[in-house]
Amino acid sequence: MPEVTGSSRPGGRTARTRESVLAAVRQLLAEQNAEVTVPAVAARSGVHATTIYRRWGTLESLLLDVAVADTQASSPVPATGDLRADLTSYVARLLTSLRGPGALGMLRAMLAAVRTADSAMEIVDFVQPRVDDFQAMLDAAEVTAIDGYRLIEIVLAPAYLRAQLGIPLDPATDGERLVDTALAVVERDQAE
Amino acid sequence: MPEVTGSSRPGGRTARTRESVLAAVRQLLAEQNAEVTVPAVAARSGVHATTIYRRWGTLESLLLDVAVADTQASSPVPATGDLRADLTSYVARLLTSLRGPGALGMLRAMLAAVRTADSAMEIVDFVQPRVDDFQAMLDAAEVTAIDGYRLIEIVLAPAYLRAQLGIPLDPATDGERLVDTALAVVERDQAE
Repeated sequence: MPEVTGSSRPGGRTARTRESVLAAVRQLLAEQNAEVTVPAVAARSGVHATTIYRRWGTLESLLLDVAVADTQASSPVPATGDLRADLTSYVARLLTSLRGPGALGMLRAMLAAVRTADSAMEIVDFVQPRVDDFQAMLDAAEVTAIDGYRLIEIVLAPAYLRAQLGIPLDPATDGERLVDTALAVVERDQAE
Repeated sequence: MPEVTGSSRPGGRTARTRESVLAAVRQLLAEQNAEVTVPAVAARSGVHATTIYRRWGTLESLLLDVAVADTQASSPVPATGDLRADLTSYVARLLTSLRGPGALGMLRAMLAAVRTADSAMEIVDFVQPRVDDFQAMLDAAEVTAIDGYRLIEIVLAPAYLRAQLGIPLDPATDGERLVDTALAVVERDQAE
């Protein structure tokens, strides 16, 4: 099982190594005709290929780590304490992005990582930072009825399924329904 | 756009033609080494290939029609009027089937049909009979807060996503949560 990336101290040597490797992947992905392979990433980053394999297991898991980090940077999950407002704003952005170019990049990265990992459980650690983002939204609103995983289940799963089927949800008419489902579970818990 | 299969009179000539074609597909699928192509289906069923293309559009849409009909037969959706009991029983069976061989066959059939259809909307008609099954469950319980599509969104989408990721939901521990989400939306509507 690859080392848990979240366990590295921020700013420590492990974190710096990760940043060098992720930066090298981004450079290679941005270059036309560049082959993105572990040896190429090793050469570009100066980090030994053995270290990359030990930490990420496969190239696909490394690409997933990059996809998660890039998604966190480009689509921050709001956590203002107003769950309805945060969810509404996040879902609108999600559904819009799922109608544009690069849609489902994150799902494809997950599926590729699962296909090549020894066990699907190995990729869970790489996705955890994104789950933590949703948990932070719930924590800010002091909501305990659902956790980050259940929020993903309620909001992301239907959005992904419809996008996969080529009939993506409409941010204008469908987003409110996804928010409504999550809030129904939360509000029932608070009413009890 | 292919003819809407649901519009054919039950027992009419259109329905009989469909049954002949579907039976031919099932025969070919069951035979080792048999190539499943529209010409082969035409030869086996005695229905002209032009008729098959006019009605189903593509081989993949025909295979989806078969998958939906077979799923309806093998996994009937209960509609007793007790929504919680019906949902619990259906979800337990769904999550169990998603851990076994042939899991995700329906999703794969839908994705293949979408890939080959001129428009994703063309496959909606073929899936409609299954949506109607879920609507019948809701109608039996006189529930109007959600419709069959939303039930699919709440229950099937997370089950499919987790199965795709190789971490299928556990019928023993996860099924109740999916049922609970659907009931939260229904119960909030009834409380208003």
